[in-house]
Amino acid sequence: MRVKDLGEFGLIGRLVKHLQVEDDDVVVAFGDDCSCVKTKEGLLLFTGDAQVEDRHFIRRLTPSQDLGWKLVSVNVSDVVACGGKPKWGFISVAFPQDLPVEYAEGIYRGISQASREYGMSVIGGNTASSDKIVLDLFLTGKTDRFVSRSSAEAGEFLLLSGHTGLARAGLELLLMEKKEYLPFEKKLINAFLRPVARLDLSDRLSRYAGSSIDISDGLVADLYHLSEASGVKLSLTRNKLPVSEELAEFCRREGKDVYDYLLYGGEDYQIAFTVKGENLKHFGDCYPIGKVERGSGVFLDGERLEKKGFTHL
Amino acid sequence: MRVKDLGEFGLIGRLVKHLQVEDDDVVVAFGDDCSCVKTKEGLLLFTGDAQVEDRHFIRRLTPSQDLGWKLVSVNVSDVVACGGKPKWGFISVAFPQDLPVEYAEGIYRGISQASREYGMSVIGGNTASSDKIVLDLFLTGKTDRFVSRSSAEAGEFLLLSGHTGLARAGLELLLMEKKEYLPFEKKLINAFLRPVARLDLSDRLSRYAGSSIDISDGLVADLYHLSEASGVKLSLTRNKLPVSEELAEFCRREGKDVYDYLLYGGEDYQIAFTVKGENLKHFGDCYPIGKVERGSGVFLDGERLEKKGFTHL
Repeated sequence: MRVKDLGEFGLIGRLVKHLQVEDDDVVVAFGDDCSCVKTKEGLLLFTGDAQVEDRHFIRRLTPSQDLGWKLVSVNVSDVVACGGKPKWGFISVAFPQDLPVEYAEGIYRGISQASREYGMSVIGGNTASSDKIVLDLFLTGKTDRFVSRSSAEAGEFLLLSGHTGLARAGLELLLMEKKEYLPFEKKLINAFLRPVARLDLSDRLSRYAGSSIDISDGLVADLYHLSEASGVKLSLTRNKLPVSEELAEFCRREGKDVYDYLLYGGEDYQIAFTVKGENLKHFGDCYPIGKVERGSGVFLDGERLEKKGFTHL
Repeated sequence: MRVKDLGEFGLIGRLVKHLQVEDDDVVVAFGDDCSCVKTKEGLLLFTGDAQVEDRHFIRRLTPSQDLGWKLVSVNVSDVVACGGKPKWGFISVAFPQDLPVEYAEGIYRGISQASREYGMSVIGGNTASSDKIVLDLFLTGKTDRFVSRSSAEAGEFLLLSGHTGLARAGLELLLMEKKEYLPFEKKLINAFLRPVARLDLSDRLSRYAGSSIDISDGLVADLYHLSEASGVKLSLTRNKLPVSEELAEFCRREGKDVYDYLLYGGEDYQIAFTVKGENLKHFGDCYPIGKVERGSGVFLDGERLEKKGFTHL
């Protein structure tokens, strides 16, 4: 059997079985957006995410600074999803020998810029060489309360922190390699190249959310992760899903189905989370898109949604 | 300018300049075997090291379990060098789609075995796909006192924790792809495939060492790192350098210079460290190979040693 026969999640499931954690200070190991450890310093979060050339990005279409920015943002988003704030990063990079030094420096400038923006520091690193650029960031964060994907409860509201589908439209536009892009197209491309993690939500999620997940794999794919981890049914209402003007314009011009992008596009780095009715008031800037119910699966206007995710390049 | 024109350390120096750390809790950032952060839990150490296919290992010559073991050991060695003990690991892997699942599982079995051996837990991970296997371990440790490579002082003794040169001889033997190996050859190959981090030294280094460094780049290369970071001269005595029987046998049979291996072989994961005379008694199992003096450079019997390191495949 080959890795491709199992798929990413099948493979993870099989590999993780080999790693038994026998440490009482470890609160959450595998299976959530972050791992979590109890220390005298409070709850520490650990996460890590990579950007691999030709898998997550194509070098000639990706400004180096954006790449560094995105590497940090995708990791910060995982910390935010658990109600935390990023603190210390450690970077591991592998560069091809013939990579222009300017490109490598640009990546680091982007990392630096994002670190400042998110109030964290990259404090160590390691380099190796490789045929393709591999960037791996490990991030440690802190939280007062760990918000898990496995703690949604029937009766809660399901909220979404912002628009989805933009990054996928942006990636498709980027791959068209047009000579010039219209302003709305540039916005979509920017959503793909330079996502912004929702650090503004950390404190509120930690205080008021029942459960939470980073929806980088696509809204429906990650809602299935939340539904399965929590053992609940999620019922979405179609006309509550926020549609950005730019995505609507893109779909109109390209003859695409906007809901396909909203539901199945990935890499938006928004957060889906659940809250009790009394706490809705703290999230006036987010979109209530559905309800948590007893049962299983993810539904849109009563119809079960196909469980499929975003696939990388 | 290309990455290859700068070399690994030139590149790191240039990239790290972009990352300013503005966090008073960060005690050590770049430039040592680990980064170090002050917390209520004590001093936390962070390190990370990768194993990249065709750079650090050749798949068909590397049993999967050994690969997992080595990934953990090389990271633990960095923590030990700073006087610490490993606690929590986070693993990031990229596998080719056609990799047999058994190979991936073997890697995880090796990781699990090493984690138990070293008293730590791998508590989270992330997978991606890639043309070649990339294994990246990020490791957090704890120490009571951070032992740096930059704090050696004239008058101290220079000690080495064990034999060097074995891993390089082992790699060369492995690359010969002999049908059968003699017992002494198997030992050398094992030193390359399955190094053991010197966790037994952590407490003593933290208590009694003036400075310390993991010599994975080769004895002389890393002694230069220590010498430069500390601003001291290191004077080695040739007949104090420990020569393993197996390495001597290998060099005799292959017509090689044993000192070339001792001084310039890499990946042995021993520790070089300095101690004051009064503390020598705590390290009866280690080898006093020289002295720390005022000045700069690394010398053997009065002659300046060439500053060159171990190069990967």
